[in-house]
Amino acid sequence: MIRSIAIIGTGLIGTSVALAVRRQGITTFLADRDGAVARAAAARGAGRAEAPPGPVDLAVLAVPPGQIGPVLTAAQAAGLARSYTDVASVKGEPERAVLRDAPDPAAFVGGHPMAGRERSGAAAARADLFDGRSWLVTPSAVTSAEALDRGVELARLCGADPVVMSSAVHDETVALVSHLPHLVASLMAARLADAPGGVVRLAGRGARDVTRIAAGDPALWTDIVRANAPAVARLMRDLCADAGRVAAALDEVAESGTGLATVTDLLERGAIGAGRLR
Amino acid sequence: MIRSIAIIGTGLIGTSVALAVRRQGITTFLADRDGAVARAAAARGAGRAEAPPGPVDLAVLAVPPGQIGPVLTAAQAAGLARSYTDVASVKGEPERAVLRDAPDPAAFVGGHPMAGRERSGAAAARADLFDGRSWLVTPSAVTSAEALDRGVELARLCGADPVVMSSAVHDETVALVSHLPHLVASLMAARLADAPGGVVRLAGRGARDVTRIAAGDPALWTDIVRANAPAVARLMRDLCADAGRVAAALDEVAESGTGLATVTDLLERGAIGAGRLR
Repeated sequence: MIRSIAIIGTGLIGTSVALAVRRQGITTFLADRDGAVARAAAARGAGRAEAPPGPVDLAVLAVPPGQIGPVLTAAQAAGLARSYTDVASVKGEPERAVLRDAPDPAAFVGGHPMAGRERSGAAAARADLFDGRSWLVTPSAVTSAEALDRGVELARLCGADPVVMSSAVHDETVALVSHLPHLVASLMAARLADAPGGVVRLAGRGARDVTRIAAGDPALWTDIVRANAPAVARLMRDLCADAGRVAAALDEVAESGTGLATVTDLLERGAIGAGRLR
Repeated sequence: MIRSIAIIGTGLIGTSVALAVRRQGITTFLADRDGAVARAAAARGAGRAEAPPGPVDLAVLAVPPGQIGPVLTAAQAAGLARSYTDVASVKGEPERAVLRDAPDPAAFVGGHPMAGRERSGAAAARADLFDGRSWLVTPSAVTSAEALDRGVELARLCGADPVVMSSAVHDETVALVSHLPHLVASLMAARLADAPGGVVRLAGRGARDVTRIAAGDPALWTDIVRANAPAVARLMRDLCADAGRVAAALDEVAESGTGLATVTDLLERGAIGAGRLR
């Protein structure tokens, strides 16, 4: 059972995890590479901005994907916790770094709370950020039963619904439900970037809905897509083939009036897919 | 000045036009190939379900794109009105039919109110459907000044903002701001049609936004895309080329870590385009 947690990285997600578990009476210790940031999180009631007196039950690495390997290695060398997890939105790349570099990969389980906000930083953190959301927990081939239990328990302590899957299934899943939708929105929005103002003003709710998420930070999304490139590439190639077939069918429709079946087929499959999200 | 209007086709748009101009005290006459439908519109206060005693100032053809040529030919042969317009969401194809077949093409101006509802039929009609919306008016090379004036005046009587452009510019514009977004939403949603239920359940607000309009009626959208196939085909080919470049770049990222600039470029152009719609 989790009684104490160390949070490494007190940005939006790290601080929100701390605030969420504090509702359950868990003791939390906060650290950030910028001490002032950890103290700001502490001032919001997220816990103590100090090192724990002995090993905590669980350390939560709330740092970017590329830093999980090195931060875990340092934390395990210092004996910070009995179990470790992270909160990154891609899981294969950090898992490979952990398996390659960490002193005790068995004590680590991947985690990914499916929640976020447009704003970032401790000031935007909320205790209820994860309430009712899915929290994906991704044990590796060597993750211990204890570490897996702690990862699942953290999700529940935060009010989320834990869903256990491998890092490979995770990355395929988020490629489909998150990364590809973002790139598709970008593909459509990019066509509007150079259009005359009079044309853009005629866009209605449909065009706004389709392109909304493309407004997200390009640097952040470049890094997300980079870390999950193989899965996203496969899906983008499939979508690209579909788009090519439809473009050829539309040419045929324009020239000879035939070819509509390909267009109808896409629209029907799209209506089925959209219906599954309602 | 418009004092009397005949509406041919009392579905959602035709009946809404009648209700909107009735607010301004215009006399309206309603016709539909199904007399019961015209009487239902009359019962909603849209006007009289009878033929006008003499030529009206404007006849509004609220029938599908493929019927505008024949319906206009019949109406002009009967001397129904001094000027004629329509409300179809594509303009080049009906304009060509009018120029080819109608007794008096100069008396016709195309029209496209940028408004609609998920529901169809006279029962869903609303007097305020067009308030504050754009209403595209598309004179042909032979449209008379009087017919153009009547088309613009109808938009204003309905509470809409008239925007005059050629049928070719119209069709390019709606291909970009309406038809391509629909197909892009369908391309993304189609990828979710066959995904496991556990995967689909993890889709968040972003995926829902991107795919929402793909839930629209495939038969209706097949017909819309068919009637505007050349313009939609050009845009789809451009988007397809963009998607292909990104897929190749992602493969390169996965293999060698290079190629990210292509991804960042798309995300940046997408953020600009999405920003223009905010």
